[in-house]
Amino acid sequence: MSDIVVQALTKIVGKENILLSLEERMCYAYDGTFRSFLPDYVVRPACTKEVQEILLLAGEHGIPVYPRGAGTGLSGGSVPINGGIAMDLIRMNKILELDKANLIVVVEPGVVTAELHKFVESHGLYYPPDPASLKSCTIGGNVAEGAGGPRAIKYGVTRDYVMGLEVVTPAGNVIKTGGRTVKNVSGYDLTRLMVGSEGTLGVFTKIILKLIPKPEAKKTILSIYPKLDGAADTVPEIINRGIIPASLEIMDDVAINCVETHLHLGLPKDAEAILLIEVDGDREAVERQGQVVAEICKSNGAMEVKVAKDDKEAEELWVARRAVSAAILQLNPTKVSEDATVPRTAIPEMIRRLRKISQKYNLPLPVYGHAGDGNLHPNIVCNKRDPEEMERVEQAVREIFEATIELGGTLTGEHGIGLMKAPFVNLQFSPEEIQYFREIKKVFDPQNILNPGKIFGGEEHEGLFSAAKRD
Amino acid sequence: MSDIVVQALTKIVGKENILLSLEERMCYAYDGTFRSFLPDYVVRPACTKEVQEILLLAGEHGIPVYPRGAGTGLSGGSVPINGGIAMDLIRMNKILELDKANLIVVVEPGVVTAELHKFVESHGLYYPPDPASLKSCTIGGNVAEGAGGPRAIKYGVTRDYVMGLEVVTPAGNVIKTGGRTVKNVSGYDLTRLMVGSEGTLGVFTKIILKLIPKPEAKKTILSIYPKLDGAADTVPEIINRGIIPASLEIMDDVAINCVETHLHLGLPKDAEAILLIEVDGDREAVERQGQVVAEICKSNGAMEVKVAKDDKEAEELWVARRAVSAAILQLNPTKVSEDATVPRTAIPEMIRRLRKISQKYNLPLPVYGHAGDGNLHPNIVCNKRDPEEMERVEQAVREIFEATIELGGTLTGEHGIGLMKAPFVNLQFSPEEIQYFREIKKVFDPQNILNPGKIFGGEEHEGLFSAAKRD
Repeated sequence: MSDIVVQALTKIVGKENILLSLEERMCYAYDGTFRSFLPDYVVRPACTKEVQEILLLAGEHGIPVYPRGAGTGLSGGSVPINGGIAMDLIRMNKILELDKANLIVVVEPGVVTAELHKFVESHGLYYPPDPASLKSCTIGGNVAEGAGGPRAIKYGVTRDYVMGLEVVTPAGNVIKTGGRTVKNVSGYDLTRLMVGSEGTLGVFTKIILKLIPKPEAKKTILSIYPKLDGAADTVPEIINRGIIPASLEIMDDVAINCVETHLHLGLPKDAEAILLIEVDGDREAVERQGQVVAEICKSNGAMEVKVAKDDKEAEELWVARRAVSAAILQLNPTKVSEDATVPRTAIPEMIRRLRKISQKYNLPLPVYGHAGDGNLHPNIVCNKRDPEEMERVEQAVREIFEATIELGGTLTGEHGIGLMKAPFVNLQFSPEEIQYFREIKKVFDPQNILNPGKIFGGEEHEGLFSAAKRD
Repeated sequence: MSDIVVQALTKIVGKENILLSLEERMCYAYDGTFRSFLPDYVVRPACTKEVQEILLLAGEHGIPVYPRGAGTGLSGGSVPINGGIAMDLIRMNKILELDKANLIVVVEPGVVTAELHKFVESHGLYYPPDPASLKSCTIGGNVAEGAGGPRAIKYGVTRDYVMGLEVVTPAGNVIKTGGRTVKNVSGYDLTRLMVGSEGTLGVFTKIILKLIPKPEAKKTILSIYPKLDGAADTVPEIINRGIIPASLEIMDDVAINCVETHLHLGLPKDAEAILLIEVDGDREAVERQGQVVAEICKSNGAMEVKVAKDDKEAEELWVARRAVSAAILQLNPTKVSEDATVPRTAIPEMIRRLRKISQKYNLPLPVYGHAGDGNLHPNIVCNKRDPEEMERVEQAVREIFEATIELGGTLTGEHGIGLMKAPFVNLQFSPEEIQYFREIKKVFDPQNILNPGKIFGGEEHEGLFSAAKRD
């Protein structure tokens, strides 16, 4: 910690917005993954100008800066692996403008996703992206990591709703990308280059988002299968009938058993899979689609199909799916939550391979996630204090990614590469492709001060899993 | 023309696929704009390897390469302003794969857009982007320029459907971007960086496109207004009622009069605006939405509202809109077709400003386009053989863009910056922003051999309009 830096940072954000004690800095050392790294300084800027001044100062002193929203990330995207400055953006949490007729909302990065949902829905509008952490995560983090969620199958992901950005680059330039029109092909698409860039190219200080009218009605269907294949066959059949559900979620037998043990909902423990399907849109269409979906479920061997009569019943059907993430932690304290994504028809084969990986490495591996878009969440449940086990976990993760790539998929559907997948990035990309990434990084951040150590593999990632016990 | 280069190119593509005569080269000198520039060589590669070898050869000899689809572009994106090699990609016109269950089609760049529509629709699927030139333009060109079309208001633009690319970079690297999953945040989003990059960063040799189920039904409504404001007020009211039409097209009085003089359809020549509105989706919903739209049109003072009873009547309602582009050429032989795009609520103000610009420079300026997404097509009708008039045109174009930016819009919604808007690019972007564009260009094309002279303004663009008479 340098006195000069502390003084300069204090001048920028004010005394109450720089945190230096160990206890305070510990709160900014982690995200939703199992590794943590202590920052040297925590600063909480309130506006674009403060962000700019912090980045200029960091550049001058060669200090790394790690931008951060609510710290709910699942790839280590915001953890300060080289110390330096943790830049907490949650004070910048204003909804700046709602332009109803143009279906646009302009927000600061620190707005919580669920707050945005609530706000726009109260005006009859809809912001579809719904990452599981929506009650605490921020829009800035969603944009940085390219967040998804269950509704992606029908409505797409964060990328599809970001129309423009105000970005402070590591060089301290404030640039505007995109704009306020759906059609816009002026210059290179820096907006989408920034979306999913994981805080490595710039800090977003304003975000222009596209909205859609709120769907009039929805219908929720829960379908329980004695055999995984029945669930797997249901998915493409729904789509072939011309129905794109708003969500199409899956839980495998391990996940079902964890939830049932945890909550006693009366789920059959011998079921191999549950699908949770939601259709939405115009009232008449939704009613008819709900019936068609229920029929398709039955004809594919479902042992039980529940159709919610109203919103209350719909919420009850979501209980099991929403509880999975917490329920599986009963098995062991550390959860390695992946988001390997394959073309949706490859899901049954992917689940079979996950079973084999689970057995080979003797690790519990419940699987749930977004069957409609092929975005599974295989979760390895383990103990980060056991380095031997964590070495097996790392091997298992590598095999999961190898299977994903082999089946035509991608390392990450919605969590980002961040830190935790950086060691595996060469499984998906050629050296030439990674070199282009590195050179784009250099264009915006020649000093490599903004979120260094992420995305691109490097020596710093060796032993990333087994070293967790020291954190 | 160099013998060594001719020999080497002949070896790559074969004698029948290199065109060297003046007559043949003249066919590759133009696009849909009014300027033309003769290439030194025309080559027609058949595969990725040939594209790669051409680029390596061009790099070795420092020869510019201008990739090209059907030459229908409206920004001069493909014209070979520095001579060199015109690379015609229409031999690469295979639909490589349809993956129905995953809603994906994989194509080569030379596939004609309407052919793709026909093919996927015969399988019950839908590829929404529908640029006006769809019967002749190619998917490769659509991706390069980021093409739009009437359906963008509901379904988005080309960018929203490109999931992955195979790209040959100017350095001769064959890279893969994106993939086959809707959710994919692995690495920087090179796919969207390539979309709309106007052939300046790489040549696309394979394109993975997202499809959706074909909408079940549609309803077409034509609404004629005595006053422009009535049409303008109709647009946000439809959207506020939660209806996003599949298209929402506008024609102003000048455009109406051109069409009526040309085709005698019985359009009232005293009408100030016509809206053509199409809703699509589930049959019941469409029926109801059609009624709501017709009511909104009437309540905003429409003098006539026609609702098509079937597909045949719907086609008849489209006749006037489809005829505009040809009809306005009766006024004068050269058409400067812009695609200035503003937030949709700024349309009435934009049309008023276009009126003033038309009067100030004494130039006919019919306006039509996509009212739903704010993407207007002000067309200046002129004569490129008259340098004095073309100087006025250039001034008028500059004022159109100044108004666009002032109203929160963008220089180009769907045509690209290309050559013809390059002189105006600094109206929209700051020097820092343009510098980032230039540095990204350098990452992929350090020698500046791929489509040089486009997007970024420069000395070569002075007198771009008035010099047209020499072409």
